[in-house]
Amino acid sequence: MNRQILLKSRPVGAPSLANFELVERPVPEPRDGQFLVRQKWMSLDPYMRGRMSDAPSYAKPVDVGGVMVAGTVGEIMVSRHADFRAGETVQLYGGWQDYALSNGNGVRKLDPASPPQHALGVLGMPGLTAYAGLLEIGKPQAGETVVVAAASGAVGSVVGQIARIKGARAVGIAGGAKKVAHVKDVLGFDDCVDHRAPDLAAALARACPKGIDVYFENVGGAVQEAVWPLLNEGARVPVCGLIAQYSDETPRPGPDFRSILRKHLTVRGFLVSNFAALDGDFRRDVGGWLAAGRIKYREDVVEGLERAPQAFLGLLNGGNFGKLLVKIA
Amino acid sequence: MNRQILLKSRPVGAPSLANFELVERPVPEPRDGQFLVRQKWMSLDPYMRGRMSDAPSYAKPVDVGGVMVAGTVGEIMVSRHADFRAGETVQLYGGWQDYALSNGNGVRKLDPASPPQHALGVLGMPGLTAYAGLLEIGKPQAGETVVVAAASGAVGSVVGQIARIKGARAVGIAGGAKKVAHVKDVLGFDDCVDHRAPDLAAALARACPKGIDVYFENVGGAVQEAVWPLLNEGARVPVCGLIAQYSDETPRPGPDFRSILRKHLTVRGFLVSNFAALDGDFRRDVGGWLAAGRIKYREDVVEGLERAPQAFLGLLNGGNFGKLLVKIA
Repeated sequence: MNRQILLKSRPVGAPSLANFELVERPVPEPRDGQFLVRQKWMSLDPYMRGRMSDAPSYAKPVDVGGVMVAGTVGEIMVSRHADFRAGETVQLYGGWQDYALSNGNGVRKLDPASPPQHALGVLGMPGLTAYAGLLEIGKPQAGETVVVAAASGAVGSVVGQIARIKGARAVGIAGGAKKVAHVKDVLGFDDCVDHRAPDLAAALARACPKGIDVYFENVGGAVQEAVWPLLNEGARVPVCGLIAQYSDETPRPGPDFRSILRKHLTVRGFLVSNFAALDGDFRRDVGGWLAAGRIKYREDVVEGLERAPQAFLGLLNGGNFGKLLVKIA
Repeated sequence: MNRQILLKSRPVGAPSLANFELVERPVPEPRDGQFLVRQKWMSLDPYMRGRMSDAPSYAKPVDVGGVMVAGTVGEIMVSRHADFRAGETVQLYGGWQDYALSNGNGVRKLDPASPPQHALGVLGMPGLTAYAGLLEIGKPQAGETVVVAAASGAVGSVVGQIARIKGARAVGIAGGAKKVAHVKDVLGFDDCVDHRAPDLAAALARACPKGIDVYFENVGGAVQEAVWPLLNEGARVPVCGLIAQYSDETPRPGPDFRSILRKHLTVRGFLVSNFAALDGDFRRDVGGWLAAGRIKYREDVVEGLERAPQAFLGLLNGGNFGKLLVKIA
C-alpha cells in the first residue's frame, strides 16, 4: 500500500494536525512514459504553509483532499520511461507519500558520491535560495554586516557561512541557547542573538555595532521590527520568507516607506525559481565549500512519514534544529 | 543688498509661511578662489521638505537661521577663481537668495544654446531622477504598464514619456481635470486618472487592465494604497519620493510584506546621486528626445524670490502645474 498525507482542510490562523489526513491507497502502476519511485527522503520547508492556503500567491495551492507537496528523493522501482531505469536514485517533487509516479519532468538523477538527502538541503532548493538571495540581492561586500534570522535552519545557516566566505561579518538570530551556541561555535558566525532575549533590539544593536548592510529576511514580525532601525544607508533586504506572519488572518503593516526612501533601501521578494540560471554556479561553489569543510551542514531527521505533520508544525514554530527531513523508508 | 530666505523654524507637521524669514544683507565679496553669482532662476523641489527637518536622513538638514538650499542658475558678476569668468552662466546650489558665493565645487557652466532653466528641470536633477529611477530600477519592458503619480510634475512627466519611448503603456495619476487632460493630450500618456476621483482604486484598475509592472513612487499615501493590489508578479517600485507623507509626525505603516514576498516585488528607494554615473547617457538621450519633440516639458514660473515660500507650500499640495521655478531676477 501507498501511505499518503492529504490536505484535509485549509488552516484558519495557525495550522494544526486536524488539517492533515493520512490515507492508504494501492501503489500505482506506471503507464508508458512514467516510472514509479519508492521515496526515501522528504523535505519539510516553510513554503508549504503557503500551499495550504488559497490566498493569492505565485503558486497554485494544494487542493483540499490532494497530496501535500514536497521535494523528495527515492529509488526507481519500475520504469516505462526511456530515460530512466529501475535502481536509479532521483530527486523529484514527489509529495508526502511512500510512492510517487513521475513522467520525468523536473526530475534529477543524483550522483551516488554524495548523500542523496543533500539534494533536498544544502545542495538543493534551500541551498540555492541562500546562495542566490544573498549574492544576487544582498550583494555582501567585505567588511559589511549581514544579519540572518533562523540562522541554524536550512537556508539561514548557508546564508551566514557564505557571507563569511565573502568577507562579511555574519550575525545570526536563533531561538534558544543551544541553537545560538551551534551558530557561533559550529557554523562560525561572528555573533548570534537569541530572539527570545528580553530586549532583542538592544541585543541586536550590540551585535551589530556598525549597523546592518544586508538583512536576509525569512521570518518577519518582531525580528524585522528589531532589525529595521539598524539598517544602514543603501542596505539590501532579500525577502525570502516571513514564517512569523504566514498565519496572520489580517494584513500586518510593514515599515514606514520613509525609511526605504531616506536610507535608499532595496527590498526584494524572490523565489528560488527566479534564479534557476544560477544552479550551475551554485553547485560548483557550494559543493566545493562543502567538500572543503568551509560550509557545515546539520540535518534534523524525523523517522516515518506519519510523523511529517507534527514535524511540519514544529518547523513553523522553530522546533527543528537544522535542515528538517523526513526519512520515509 | 542680497535678499535671503532663511529657515526660521522647523515645521511640526505641515510647513507654513511662519517657518521662513526673508532678510536683507550686504552682497558678499568674493575672496581668492571664489566668484559671485547673480542668481536668475531657482528650482523648488519636494526634497526641500526633508532638509527643513532634522529627522535622520541621507542629507544634512538646513540649520535653523540658515539659507534654504536650492539648485539655481545665474551669471557670474565677479570672479577671483582661475576657472570661471565674469559673464559666464552657471548652474550651482546657490540657495534661496539673490546672490551666491561659490568656490566652484559642483558648479557647471551652461551651454548658451538651450534655455538655462532647463538645467534645473528636464535636463537637470529632476530629469536624471526620472531617467535613472525608471530605467535602472523600473526597467520597463515593451508592453508592460508603468504607473506614475504627480504625472504632470517635473519628474513624473518625464517618467511617463520615457516609458512610452521604451514601448510601455504609461498611466499617469494627477490632481484635477486640467492636469489630467495635459498628461493625456500634451504629454501623450496612454491614460491618466484623477486622484481626487471618488473611487481612485476602481478608476486605476480600469486604466490598468493588465495590472501594473512598474510603479514609480513619488507620493505614497492613498495613491500607494490604490496601486498596491494591482501590482503584478515581479513588479518594480522605484521609491523616489513620498510627498503625501513628508509631514507625518508618526510613522505611517507600509504594505504587508507578504505582498512583497508573494509577488516577488522589488521596492528600492534611491537618490539621484546614486546614479551620477549615468549623467552622460541621460544628457545624450533626454537632450535628444527633447530636441526631437518626443519629450514635452512644461514650466510653472513664479516671479520674485519673495514668493518662493508660498510657491513651495503649494508644491507640497500639488498646486503647481509643471516644473516649478522661481524667476529671481
